[in-house]
Amino acid sequence: MPTITFWFDFGSTYAYLSAMRIAELAAGAAVPVIWRPFLLGPIFADQGWQTSPFNIYPAKGRYMWRDMERLCQARGLEFVRPDPFPQHGLRAARVAQLALKTDRGAAFCREVFQAQFARGADISQTETLRDCLDRCALPAELLDRSGAPPNKAALRASTDAARCAGLFGAPSFTVDGELFWGDDRLEDALAWANAPHSSEGS
Amino acid sequence: MPTITFWFDFGSTYAYLSAMRIAELAAGAAVPVIWRPFLLGPIFADQGWQTSPFNIYPAKGRYMWRDMERLCQARGLEFVRPDPFPQHGLRAARVAQLALKTDRGAAFCREVFQAQFARGADISQTETLRDCLDRCALPAELLDRSGAPPNKAALRASTDAARCAGLFGAPSFTVDGELFWGDDRLEDALAWANAPHSSEGS
Repeated sequence: MPTITFWFDFGSTYAYLSAMRIAELAAGAAVPVIWRPFLLGPIFADQGWQTSPFNIYPAKGRYMWRDMERLCQARGLEFVRPDPFPQHGLRAARVAQLALKTDRGAAFCREVFQAQFARGADISQTETLRDCLDRCALPAELLDRSGAPPNKAALRASTDAARCAGLFGAPSFTVDGELFWGDDRLEDALAWANAPHSSEGS
Repeated sequence: MPTITFWFDFGSTYAYLSAMRIAELAAGAAVPVIWRPFLLGPIFADQGWQTSPFNIYPAKGRYMWRDMERLCQARGLEFVRPDPFPQHGLRAARVAQLALKTDRGAAFCREVFQAQFARGADISQTETLRDCLDRCALPAELLDRSGAPPNKAALRASTDAARCAGLFGAPSFTVDGELFWGDDRLEDALAWANAPHSSEGS
């Protein structure tokens, strides 16, 4: 049985949508999920962007905020527009890597997304991350350990792996080397895991 | 009953997907469709792009071709990659405007998309457009009439209207001033037409 890898950057609005539903959908499809934080910043820099394309291209940005508002309303999710956007998610990603070594990793990631997009908290702040850990009954010491060199290197490696997998945005999903981009493709990615159509097989 | 406006540029790969399914889906939802060709070129130029973003950003382009391949296979549509891409769809759009004044306009638009994306024909060529007209039993004289100043002005007006409606890509759909972008949002746009959630009403 193939797994689905969920690639996300905590600053991504559409990754919030996927984070809030992937566990239930994947369980229904009996597909194990690997949560994999990475950093969009270096990937965007490859494309010549110093910030989110939603900031660079105003019409695209205006549309995204309205689209998120509609989607969150339809899905019963709270949504506030973070200020500033995008937020600095480096530290949250490093803490998430440690949290994901426990059985509460996915819960922690959801807390970080909700802190930012449901409550408007600043996820670059220590207090916000400590609160997220606390809500999952994870120890605050993960915050201190997150800056250790091997953990920092692991996040760089994930970002490199994302680039090598062809990722150019988030959320993205990979199943047996097949790439799916965007929350809209989550169902397709899960279907692929259950019935791969690749001529190479898995 | 609100209508749905289907905004498309003939060079858009994902607009091909919508063109091939919007008539059936909209009929099922009892929503009248207004087919509205416009030109992405000037809209992309607003964003600083001189060609398709799929050419400018290689990772995004590689993904799009694979995504189209998967989607067309799943939907039973032929798909070939046009060469060059994007094709020059100005004349096709002008002819489409005239065809859309008849009851065979949507059929003509589907023929143009299929010529390009199912058979790899060059839609900037007279022979291709004449064949598309012929397949719909529309007169070849539309080709000559397409270059008349009022028809050229009408296409420029549509592109300006697209910009004013907040469009930044294709396909896009508008329902009562609400914008939906991408083939993925066609169902949402139709649902909106039947049950608008806008606090302003229609």
